[in-house]
Amino acid sequence: MNTKVTELKSRLAEVYDLNMIGALLNWDSSTYMPLDGAPARGRQMGLIARIGHEKMTDPAIGRLLDELHAYEESLPYDSDEASLIRVARREYERAIRVPAAFMAKLQEHIAETFDVWTRARPANDFKRVQGMLEKTVDLSRQLASYFPGYQHIIDPLISYSDYGMKAADIRAIFADLRNQLLPLIKTITSQDDMDDGFLHQPYSTEKQLAFGLDVIKLYGYDFNRGRQDLTHHPYTTKFSLSDVRITTRVKENDLCEALFGTLHESGHAIYEQGINLAYEGTPLASGASSGVHESQSRTWENLIGRSRGFWEFFYPKLKEMFPTQLSSISVDRYYRAINKVQRSLIRTDADEVTYNLHPIIRFDLELRMLEGTLEVRDLPQAWDERYANDIGITPPNDRDGVLQDVHWYSGIIGGAFQGYTLGNIMSAQFYAEAVKAHPEINEQIASGEFTTLSAWLKQAIYQHGAKFTADELLHRVTGQGLSIEPYVTYLKNKYSSIYKLG
Amino acid sequence: MNTKVTELKSRLAEVYDLNMIGALLNWDSSTYMPLDGAPARGRQMGLIARIGHEKMTDPAIGRLLDELHAYEESLPYDSDEASLIRVARREYERAIRVPAAFMAKLQEHIAETFDVWTRARPANDFKRVQGMLEKTVDLSRQLASYFPGYQHIIDPLISYSDYGMKAADIRAIFADLRNQLLPLIKTITSQDDMDDGFLHQPYSTEKQLAFGLDVIKLYGYDFNRGRQDLTHHPYTTKFSLSDVRITTRVKENDLCEALFGTLHESGHAIYEQGINLAYEGTPLASGASSGVHESQSRTWENLIGRSRGFWEFFYPKLKEMFPTQLSSISVDRYYRAINKVQRSLIRTDADEVTYNLHPIIRFDLELRMLEGTLEVRDLPQAWDERYANDIGITPPNDRDGVLQDVHWYSGIIGGAFQGYTLGNIMSAQFYAEAVKAHPEINEQIASGEFTTLSAWLKQAIYQHGAKFTADELLHRVTGQGLSIEPYVTYLKNKYSSIYKLG
Repeated sequence: MNTKVTELKSRLAEVYDLNMIGALLNWDSSTYMPLDGAPARGRQMGLIARIGHEKMTDPAIGRLLDELHAYEESLPYDSDEASLIRVARREYERAIRVPAAFMAKLQEHIAETFDVWTRARPANDFKRVQGMLEKTVDLSRQLASYFPGYQHIIDPLISYSDYGMKAADIRAIFADLRNQLLPLIKTITSQDDMDDGFLHQPYSTEKQLAFGLDVIKLYGYDFNRGRQDLTHHPYTTKFSLSDVRITTRVKENDLCEALFGTLHESGHAIYEQGINLAYEGTPLASGASSGVHESQSRTWENLIGRSRGFWEFFYPKLKEMFPTQLSSISVDRYYRAINKVQRSLIRTDADEVTYNLHPIIRFDLELRMLEGTLEVRDLPQAWDERYANDIGITPPNDRDGVLQDVHWYSGIIGGAFQGYTLGNIMSAQFYAEAVKAHPEINEQIASGEFTTLSAWLKQAIYQHGAKFTADELLHRVTGQGLSIEPYVTYLKNKYSSIYKLG
Repeated sequence: MNTKVTELKSRLAEVYDLNMIGALLNWDSSTYMPLDGAPARGRQMGLIARIGHEKMTDPAIGRLLDELHAYEESLPYDSDEASLIRVARREYERAIRVPAAFMAKLQEHIAETFDVWTRARPANDFKRVQGMLEKTVDLSRQLASYFPGYQHIIDPLISYSDYGMKAADIRAIFADLRNQLLPLIKTITSQDDMDDGFLHQPYSTEKQLAFGLDVIKLYGYDFNRGRQDLTHHPYTTKFSLSDVRITTRVKENDLCEALFGTLHESGHAIYEQGINLAYEGTPLASGASSGVHESQSRTWENLIGRSRGFWEFFYPKLKEMFPTQLSSISVDRYYRAINKVQRSLIRTDADEVTYNLHPIIRFDLELRMLEGTLEVRDLPQAWDERYANDIGITPPNDRDGVLQDVHWYSGIIGGAFQGYTLGNIMSAQFYAEAVKAHPEINEQIASGEFTTLSAWLKQAIYQHGAKFTADELLHRVTGQGLSIEPYVTYLKNKYSSIYKLG
């Protein structure tokens, strides 16, 4: 049986490496590629994707998976080999369901849409992409149709990023969360506006970047297996488990942009770096789901990086780096400023309390577009109405409204947004377990000590890679499924204290 | 017939793009890749090379080339389509001659040898690589054996880089050149040593790099289609005709290192950027040969960049950038210092006059190793003897002797070194033609004006890419084949003036 596993792994390693190579082509195109390199790069990325798809859908993989079925069943569910075969089967079956010609058409349409969006957004011209977005909805529905038997048409699309999650469950949980958030936001934003102007003085960008790197080194991000570069939009990418890179952007007049972006991406990267190295080259060498991934970026960015304890340790160092700007600012005032809650338009700039309304709005609009109850031409209006109703602010234009996020213009409709809020919810569930197991964690953070927490996260979550689904992981680690209770408790405690609520 | 050409081009474009992707994987590994990324990167480079080789040796390409034979013969020899088919056939036939299993074995051996060399060189330990080098000689001989009918066993190996050049011709020409150089060197080095110490003061590395970039911008290197990064060893690479990158290294105590390295690599890059863009994705989208390529790097580095006229224009700017270091140095003294001739050990640091002895020595040693008249165990001694005899200096150790160049430890024996000297010889032949056509060129250079020269080079050489062999190009451009006369005249004139010789 061993030789069949070996052959399967060898075939999967080729697919894995082609994906990694595609990621490098993409990374270079957003970091260092000269302007005119784009057309050839697009062609090369297409070629690698096509060869990868051909190799993943090779019938030989299907035969091997069939032949290995009995062997798989003889092994414990959570053994490495059973998990490898199980996850490979899931990916193989998903890959062969969709005709290559359809995938090519979809990719081409997406590339074209993205290109138009890059001009439509600055021009504040939704009409320019409306027709393309209508086609994206059609193609997204068609993609779902290759997976018959779904409860909701979005379910197969969600399963690409958050395998096992269903619209019915997500919708209910998001509604609960929204019901908790709306009154909290109302109470907080009825208070006088907090002055955080000192965060927007000029801060040397070099020093900002250096400070972020110092923090994530202490977090445990391994620079022998990663690095940071500048991009227009920050992200994390990997070219192997031993080469997991992050990117960031830095603004001279915003102390938070580079710092929290760096902490966020480092969370994604520390997760990938923590995966069992024995999984290198297999489909297990990735995070469990988009939601679980986001739970870790949010843990290191928010639960830790925006906590009072963290700044007890780091604020003196920050002040030392920027004495002119911060000498008169107390740690308490700084802490409250970086956690300022406000009704705002842009998802990526939102504070922890209002943040989740942004993905929830997008998820609800996706459901309606896919169900056919919302036409793309009515999308801007629907968007603005929800912002007025939920966040209490109406976008003055589409640029900062329906055109703000790249997702719908660089991918399908459905599957891209739920992970952000699922991640926030899970972050608090996992973190509560970590503190239950090691009550000293919060105290350690206040001394710049993260090894207990990161060792626990590695053991509980990171090492397993994609072995378990998000739901399986939640049950293994917390003893129950998705629950908003720890997250809502966390938000209420933290912000009651900051805003001195009842 | 058109559809067959289209199919051929489409197949060749895949091979081309896979080569370009391999080049990006390599570029990243020498610029930005974190330390531990190496093992996966090696695996990925191997995968891309294997897929590229599979696609290049696909029998469908052979069938298309057969079917296109009559069509090719109906076209003018120098038409784009006939040239495409001709060059593709040459590459296809070369690729199918060598069994894939042998190529894989060779690549693996080379990778291993390189790895050992990176440690053996600093340790000054030739013995550590001796056994591997012996195997490299065997494998190089075996590689040649797949091309029976050669005059000399090195000929098929040379043809990978300098197609059409034969050992018999090269040997004769190199002997002639050596006979001209030895007395010239003797005369010059019998003079008192020239003091060039001011070149070795501390010079800000940032400013050094900025100055180099300013020069190559004026040369015409297009930064929308290229960029410069730092590496341990400088080189030029491309990921398409619109993404041709150079690398450099910079030393604080050496004003020449980064500058002339940059000018050199820019010459390679300007050549690639000047290839007809219609050739993108085909085997015509590359330089004509290693020698022709080197002729252009040497043109922009030496014939121009180390000329008196060039520094009439640029020296005041350099002085402005480094007033402390250069205020007391006249342009004449500077010009003579950057052209100082001396007996030295390291090929890449050698001046124009002694330089060619280094490749000629290596070429002669390659011939003897491949012929079987020199054993690898006797190579260090043979090396040292030739250095003592030709250059008048004996290497104090193997690190700066037989271990100095990466070529034998990262490739086959044979084919890597002749191109350097062929390039120097051709550079003067081409340049003489340019000046004959446009006598104003030398005057223009003294005003920082390079467009007449670069337009001529583009029209005469660059645009054609790999359409013509080096010999064809020489005949088209100069009306004759390889000739050392213009090069020797150039050296004698320039250095007679610098050293005030009879």
